Amino acid sequence: MPKTLADVGEFGLIHRIHKLLKKEGVKTPGVTLGIGDDTASIRPRPGYELLVTCDCLVDGQHFLSDRITPLDLGRRAMVVNISDIGAMGGQPLYALVSLGLKTDMPVADVENMYRGFAMELNPFGASIIGGNITKIRDAIFIDITLLGEVEQSKLMLRSTAKAGDAILVTGYPGQAAAGLQFLLRSQSRKDIREHPLVRAFNTPSHRAREGQAIARSGYATAMIDTSDGFLGDLGHICQDSSVGAVLIQEELPISEDLRQAALELKLDPYELFLQDSDDYELIITSRPKNAAQICSAVASVDNVPVTEVGKITDSVGDIQLILPDGTRRHITPVGWDHFTKGGR
Amino acid sequence: MPKTLADVGEFGLIHRIHKLLKKEGVKTPGVTLGIGDDTASIRPRPGYELLVTCDCLVDGQHFLSDRITPLDLGRRAMVVNISDIGAMGGQPLYALVSLGLKTDMPVADVENMYRGFAMELNPFGASIIGGNITKIRDAIFIDITLLGEVEQSKLMLRSTAKAGDAILVTGYPGQAAAGLQFLLRSQSRKDIREHPLVRAFNTPSHRAREGQAIARSGYATAMIDTSDGFLGDLGHICQDSSVGAVLIQEELPISEDLRQAALELKLDPYELFLQDSDDYELIITSRPKNAAQICSAVASVDNVPVTEVGKITDSVGDIQLILPDGTRRHITPVGWDHFTKGGR
Repeated sequence: MPKTLADVGEFGLIHRIHKLLKKEGVKTPGVTLGIGDDTASIRPRPGYELLVTCDCLVDGQHFLSDRITPLDLGRRAMVVNISDIGAMGGQPLYALVSLGLKTDMPVADVENMYRGFAMELNPFGASIIGGNITKIRDAIFIDITLLGEVEQSKLMLRSTAKAGDAILVTGYPGQAAAGLQFLLRSQSRKDIREHPLVRAFNTPSHRAREGQAIARSGYATAMIDTSDGFLGDLGHICQDSSVGAVLIQEELPISEDLRQAALELKLDPYELFLQDSDDYELIITSRPKNAAQICSAVASVDNVPVTEVGKITDSVGDIQLILPDGTRRHITPVGWDHFTKGGR
Repeated sequence: MPKTLADVGEFGLIHRIHKLLKKEGVKTPGVTLGIGDDTASIRPRPGYELLVTCDCLVDGQHFLSDRITPLDLGRRAMVVNISDIGAMGGQPLYALVSLGLKTDMPVADVENMYRGFAMELNPFGASIIGGNITKIRDAIFIDITLLGEVEQSKLMLRSTAKAGDAILVTGYPGQAAAGLQFLLRSQSRKDIREHPLVRAFNTPSHRAREGQAIARSGYATAMIDTSDGFLGDLGHICQDSSVGAVLIQEELPISEDLRQAALELKLDPYELFLQDSDDYELIITSRPKNAAQICSAVASVDNVPVTEVGKITDSVGDIQLILPDGTRRHITPVGWDHFTKGGR
């Protein structure tokens, strides 16, 4: 029988995690006091903004523990946070990981979760500097606080889009939403894991490198990641910048995979694109003449596509979709809302 | 019927919390971008260490939601984190609050929880700069990340105690453990809340002001808060400083309330003092000749007693208790361990 948390105890588990991170994690400079103490201590760099974000994943709510490997779950939880730092143009540096786990969980699963964390942090030279582990009876949770830094002049905001700006998006939003539908509808849980859209849901790509390159270029006016769905986050830009937006449906980048999946699922691919979908792509606004520079900035780090999908307008809070026949539809931003009746 | 989270939704709830914090919270300097964004941005002060701690409270594990008011629960969750920052000699500055809540929870309860957070942060000029709220089905949780600062030369550690040092403790550890016993054994849930030892459990006092004063004095060699119980945390000092300790049982500060309670509960007051108890007092070590200065430092901010209870020795990892008859008992540090069988 595999060793469980009940077998090794909290301190035994922490000891194993320290060992694992020492071996498989990197050491970030600037840490005066790291994991193992109640409090971590770091020396921030002068001239830099310190960024702090936290995101919590709960089983049954943000992931399905029986349809994702512990390694992928660890990666996913860290990606969600890295995405937030990257959307500000920042570099991830230090993570604190709070876990709520069940006593019958195999130790190897927890270790693989930490491998997943390290796998995402290591490329940035970022590390886990603290956290805590708590016993729970029910749905496990992973709550991560991630600290990062960005040069003071390069901080990207959601509140600085201007009427007339072009709206750009990285990658293919909507894929994760389709992947989630496949996961929910599948009978055999393991076979489906390798489906490309299921992978898009289980281990989404953050665009932190791209976000940093965009921030460094100086050509973006605003930026946000699509953690609340494309429309939800475009809505955040509109609300916080006091602007509106028009989107051209034909320009929305629908991947061939998503088009196929939508057919199979009997769903509208544009709805999948616009509504809740955990893709962690970036929405960027820029003066129209600078859109090409945004594309070049992204191309300098990766080959992810950047697509111009519409324009920022001065109709505060109003987002319109122009259909192929030229008619306009008012679309209300609906992001993640976990509490209202019917919400996931 | 009171409004629940399902009635107002996640964004509705967040809007209410913003309003509440604007009215009842303080604004901490140095925040470039605060609550409402996915990521907060701050400008740390040069010459200061940035401290980061996180602690998670889970219903049934760290508190009993039917035996604590939402206001007190908010206070308690924040105190636990403030205590960690204070034990390093630090000043609390910025909090991120992650909540796992049930949809049928009254909005007023969540608001009162935030009032509790603000009540503890306000005296430090500290504020909530971010966080997130997630729907859960079962036991609610409160996971707080607290950032603070301390002058680089004043950072207090647990790893710097020296053989020959005096061991001092603030207040009366063990009271919270007795309070928890009363809570667990009580039938009528509300009457018991005002019992002084139940209050010691539900709304423990942190010693952050005292910790700062001790750090500023420069006379302490090591410091830690008693979040893992007196013996658990003395054990952390011994392990991380590669030292041992002797304690004199007759010197342990057992409050009159605790002595009475122990009789009533048929428990040993010294066991209550030494083992798991959520009092959040401070253990301080200092050269013996400087013990009086530690007491003066604490007296400069508060009238909480400071008691010398033993000495640091060079017997690495060995903690002994000298009984009134002069015999010595080896006592193994047992701190919080949530996973091993039989652990809470």
